[in-house]
Parts: sequence; structure tokens; C-alpha cells
Amino acid sequence: MGDIMKSSTEYLTFDTEQKIQFVMITDDVTKVVEDSRVKDGLVLVTPMHITAAVIVNDNEDGLHNDYLRVLEKLVPYNDKYEHNVAEDNAAAHIWRQFMGHQVVLPITNGKLDLGPWEQIFYCEFDGKRQKKVLVKVIGD
Amino acid sequence: MGDIMKSSTEYLTFDTEQKIQFVMITDDVTKVVEDSRVKDGLVLVTPMHITAAVIVNDNEDGLHNDYLRVLEKLVPYNDKYEHNVAEDNAAAHIWRQFMGHQVVLPITNGKLDLGPWEQIFYCEFDGKRQKKVLVKVIGD
Amino acid sequence: MGDIMKSSTEYLTFDTEQKIQFVMITDDVTKVVEDSRVKDGLVLVTPMHITAAVIVNDNEDGLHNDYLRVLEKLVPYNDKYEHNVAEDNAAAHIWRQFMGHQVVLPITNGKLDLGPWEQIFYCEFDGKRQKKVLVKVIGD
Repeated sequence: MGDIMKSSTEYLTFDTEQKIQFVMITDDVTKVVEDSRVKDGLVLVTPMHITAAVIVNDNEDGLHNDYLRVLEKLVPYNDKYEHNVAEDNAAAHIWRQFMGHQVVLPITNGKLDLGPWEQIFYCEFDGKRQKKVLVKVIGD
Repeated sequence: MGDIMKSSTEYLTFDTEQKIQFVMITDDVTKVVEDSRVKDGLVLVTPMHITAAVIVNDNEDGLHNDYLRVLEKLVPYNDKYEHNVAEDNAAAHIWRQFMGHQVVLPITNGKLDLGPWEQIFYCEFDGKRQKKVLVKVIGD
Repeated sequence: MGDIMKSSTEYLTFDTEQKIQFVMITDDVTKVVEDSRVKDGLVLVTPMHITAAVIVNDNEDGLHNDYLRVLEKLVPYNDKYEHNVAEDNAAAHIWRQFMGHQVVLPITNGKLDLGPWEQIFYCEFDGKRQKKVLVKVIGD
């Protein structure tokens, strides 16, 4: 440990078919990490949009439905919002904050250092248009 | 790609006029990033207090009101809390977790690498006293 | 500022006596930071499991009870969830997202650079089994 610093940046593009959708991106992030040749460091995975989130959780459809049911119960999409004058996506802005905007993940021995059930998801809450997720690796 | 590491730290100070207030700090963070001369790296923007949050979202007052209305509905400020013996700010501690404590943002080509609508906000939930936000840049 | 990059990784292990429990880990993270000899940088503190969170907030039992009471009110542990077929922990997956999955903390002058009330907690929402938290330091 004690080496020259390296960094690497990629932009993943999404154009979801549904307005609200979870997309698993663990393999995409893994590829960016491996291509970076960083042995030890951090990778930031962050949406460049404000109605989407990047989270780490379980690859289980039932759970994803539970997330959406709870969010809809607590912050209904079609409730009245001051933001919804020209737009209808205020709830999407709020959901992304409650779910957690972004993640920073560890790289150890050249690999994403995740626990057995950790999977990375892009959570789209106002889709059907092109969005980007930035993946930036720094380390040695 | 492959360089000596640099780092830089600044402390932003806030003394909000209102107890609950959103303060846009994109320009402050941009200045710290530019002054650091880091070309590629990460910047952590984190409050040094536990009743405030730093988030990235829209610069739109209606949406900020929507955030506060939803937080007040779900976690009312003047509800009964065990924490509120000598203090009255339990809800502020909870709001800050729900909104997301802090952000880590990418620096690419010497600039904050944000999407078109991403703005950085200091969210004060128990203000009218001096608070600090730490901004730390690392990269090459 | 402008030095060779260093990194250091430790795994903290938890086997909580209770299913739902807050464990203060500020001292553990402090030790990893000091042992790393990094003078200026970042430390990522992240659970390797998806029903736990790492947060920064107050070391006050009343407030921790308030967090749990609010989470239980908004997302009841024993409500019906699609995820709860073979398991009963869907709410734990949701609580972890609402509370904030992980933290990244600053290191300045060789020390964790925290405000006066910031303490780091491992929040277990489905315990009584072995879990790990990864602590990774990078800096110079």
C-alpha cells in the first residue's frame, strides 16, 4: 500500500421502458472497476438526475414491490405537491432522497468488495427518457 | 491517470435566520473544487452537525416546501419524542437521516461533474445557531 | 499536500444479542484511521449486509428509541410484505434505506474530522447472526 493514484470514469445510460423501474447494474459497475485496474480504492456510483437513486440491496422482485408500495403509501405519486405545476414528478424527487441518492463502494484486490447479498440497483422513479449514472473509480 | 494524490479541505459556516431552511451551496463547493486544482477525484460534502443534511436536488422552492410538508406529515416536529427532554429537535435528527446525511460528488477535468439539474443544498432542520459543513477534495 | 496514496481496509464483526440494536462504533473506526497512518483522506464505513445501516448521529438512547418508534409506525415490521415468504425481514431492508445505508467520513491531520456530537453507529435491523462492516481508508 503506497502507490501512484489512478482514476477512471464511465457514464452508464438508461432509457427505461417504465416510469418506475429497478435496474440491476452490479455487472456494469464490476466492469468499470476491473477496467480501471485499481487494486484498492473506492467507486462512486451516482445518478446525474434528481428523480433517480442508486442503492445497494437485494435482487428480489417481491422486495422491490414492497419498496414501491411503502413509498406510494407514505408519499403518494398523485398527491398534491407545489412542485407539480408543469411537472408531475414531485414524489419521485422525494422518493429518491428517502431511498438514498447514491453509493460509494469499496474495491479490494482489484474487485468490488461486496457482501454475499449486496447488489447494485439503478432506481428510476420518473423514467421513459434518457438518464445517466456516473461511475468514478479512484485508488491505487 | 496515474499521478500524485492531492487533497484539500474547507469548512463552510452557516447561521441560518430560520430554524428550518434550505441553502444552495453549489457555488461554494465549486470554488473549493477549483481552488484544490484536483483534475480527477471526489469531493465529500458533509455537515458536522446531526440535525442537518447535505443533499443534491432541484433548485425549486415549491419542491422544498413539498419536502418539508411530507417530513412534517410523517415525522411531526412537535410530536412526543423521548429525546425531547431538554431539547425539542428529535424530529430534526430523524429528518436528516430520511433526507440523506451527506453527498460525495465526482470531479472530472477539474470541475464538479454534475447533471443539468443537480444543485447542492445545505438543509438546516434546527438552525439559528452556527453550524459547519466540511468540504474535502481528494484526487489527482 | 501532494503525496503517495495509501489505503487500508478492516472488517468489523457483529453478532448482536438483539434483532434490532444500535452499536456505537466510533472508537473502532478511529482505530482503523489511526492505524492506517493516512494524514488526509476519506474513510468509507459500510455494512456488507442489506438489513443494516451505518449512520452518524447522537449517542442518546431516547433518540434511538424515537428512530425505532417512527420506523415501526411508518413501515411496521410485521406488516404484510411480498418479500416475507421464507423470511420476515422486509421491513429491515426498507428501514436501512430510509436511515441511510453508509457513511463516508473525512480524515484531517491524521484524525477522524467529526463535529462535537457526531458518533458513528452500526444499526442492526435483523440481527442475532454474524454480520460485517467494512472500513476502508484512502488518502495520503
